[in-house]
Amino acid sequence: MRSMVLVGTGNLARILYDELSKIDSFTIKQVVGRSHEKLSHFSKDTPTTTTFDHLEVADVYLMAVADKAIPLVADQMAQLGGLLVHTSGATDLNALGPAGRKGVFYPLQTFTHGTTVNFRQVPIGVEAENNEDTQLLHDLGRSLSDTVFDLPSPKRAQLHLAAVFANNFTNYLYSVAADICRKQELNFSLLLPLIQQTAKKVGEVPPERAQTGPAIRNDLKTMHAHLNLLQKKEHKDLYILLSNAIKASHGEKL
Amino acid sequence: MRSMVLVGTGNLARILYDELSKIDSFTIKQVVGRSHEKLSHFSKDTPTTTTFDHLEVADVYLMAVADKAIPLVADQMAQLGGLLVHTSGATDLNALGPAGRKGVFYPLQTFTHGTTVNFRQVPIGVEAENNEDTQLLHDLGRSLSDTVFDLPSPKRAQLHLAAVFANNFTNYLYSVAADICRKQELNFSLLLPLIQQTAKKVGEVPPERAQTGPAIRNDLKTMHAHLNLLQKKEHKDLYILLSNAIKASHGEKL
Repeated sequence: MRSMVLVGTGNLARILYDELSKIDSFTIKQVVGRSHEKLSHFSKDTPTTTTFDHLEVADVYLMAVADKAIPLVADQMAQLGGLLVHTSGATDLNALGPAGRKGVFYPLQTFTHGTTVNFRQVPIGVEAENNEDTQLLHDLGRSLSDTVFDLPSPKRAQLHLAAVFANNFTNYLYSVAADICRKQELNFSLLLPLIQQTAKKVGEVPPERAQTGPAIRNDLKTMHAHLNLLQKKEHKDLYILLSNAIKASHGEKL
Repeated sequence: MRSMVLVGTGNLARILYDELSKIDSFTIKQVVGRSHEKLSHFSKDTPTTTTFDHLEVADVYLMAVADKAIPLVADQMAQLGGLLVHTSGATDLNALGPAGRKGVFYPLQTFTHGTTVNFRQVPIGVEAENNEDTQLLHDLGRSLSDTVFDLPSPKRAQLHLAAVFANNFTNYLYSVAADICRKQELNFSLLLPLIQQTAKKVGEVPPERAQTGPAIRNDLKTMHAHLNLLQKKEHKDLYILLSNAIKASHGEKL
């Protein structure tokens, strides 16, 4: 059994804690956070601390903290001898600093309070500096997920960028659709089967081949009508840019 | 039992035909299309024709044709006395012309060859000019779907616009993510759990509240890194516009 200190109290920290509580191969010795209130989720079953002065010695220091906090947190733990691991998609391995053993454990998923995730279906990209540490992260990953793979920092940055398009930007498009529905007193839930079918379809047909809509048909009449219906300038700009991009990407294939 | 002539041989026509074949309250007397080859899907069990000269008399003429073909097709059928019905989100009821009884039967879903849809979960918006025809379309809708609702042309145009954001534009963002993955030799399927979770989450938490990512955190370091990683100008432009829109929409709420 390997021991672990978990740093962070946000959504990802909670989910990792709950998932790790179900397995035997890793045990959480301590949770570190700034807020007593947020630590209360963990303190029933696990020692917690709000300072770096009383850190436990552990095999792994797993950081589920804001990207910008990673170097500062790592610096506090570098002398303890364990493997320092961050969970960020956008942060290089070397942000963990020059001292200490370094690793990355990147769960490619969105974690929002009030929603559930089947963690065994979350792909985990891992990175370390030597075989032994890489193996440790693979062991950790496989104890939680069915999909664990090596992911060096440059590729992780690209995968994170792809995820921003597939998740953050997509969610923003949903919010534009919700905004249009709200103004027309249409129930946004009418769009849910369409949204879910679109997400399901991309697993069956490549998105380039599944593209439909006025832009790819070059249906100028519908596109002009839509631009007249849109009220906000940023929605009009987005409509034009996305429609032109769809037309251009279709043109590439001809 | 009501009788129907189905016009069109594309994805929607096939799906409507297959769904209507399962029910007793409507029967398809004839399928009309331009191509003998495409009519072969229907001709095993139903009479077909490639000309408007031999149209059957029916209660309903259901058109699953391209938007721009609707006035021409309707004109061919206006004298037969049945209810002329189109299935387009973007086309006004009046595009069916001045003569004849008119209706709209709009299934709010994306239909792509090679993918399956549970039609009972497809919301159907209906519109007609009098109570009797509206009732007929409700009957037709309820025989195929659990969600049938009145949807006048102006609201239908808005719902269709919202659907373009939620489906067509979202699918384009998936294709950008797929493009990034392909160039890095990353398997696009790694993103599928994220994509499906994002689509599931929007049914649980309003998209404005579920928004995550560098833009809403105003994480300039990550956003600049992403812009450096993007190679195509249209992807960079899209990244900037979407990030600014996310920042602006968040600002509105503050």
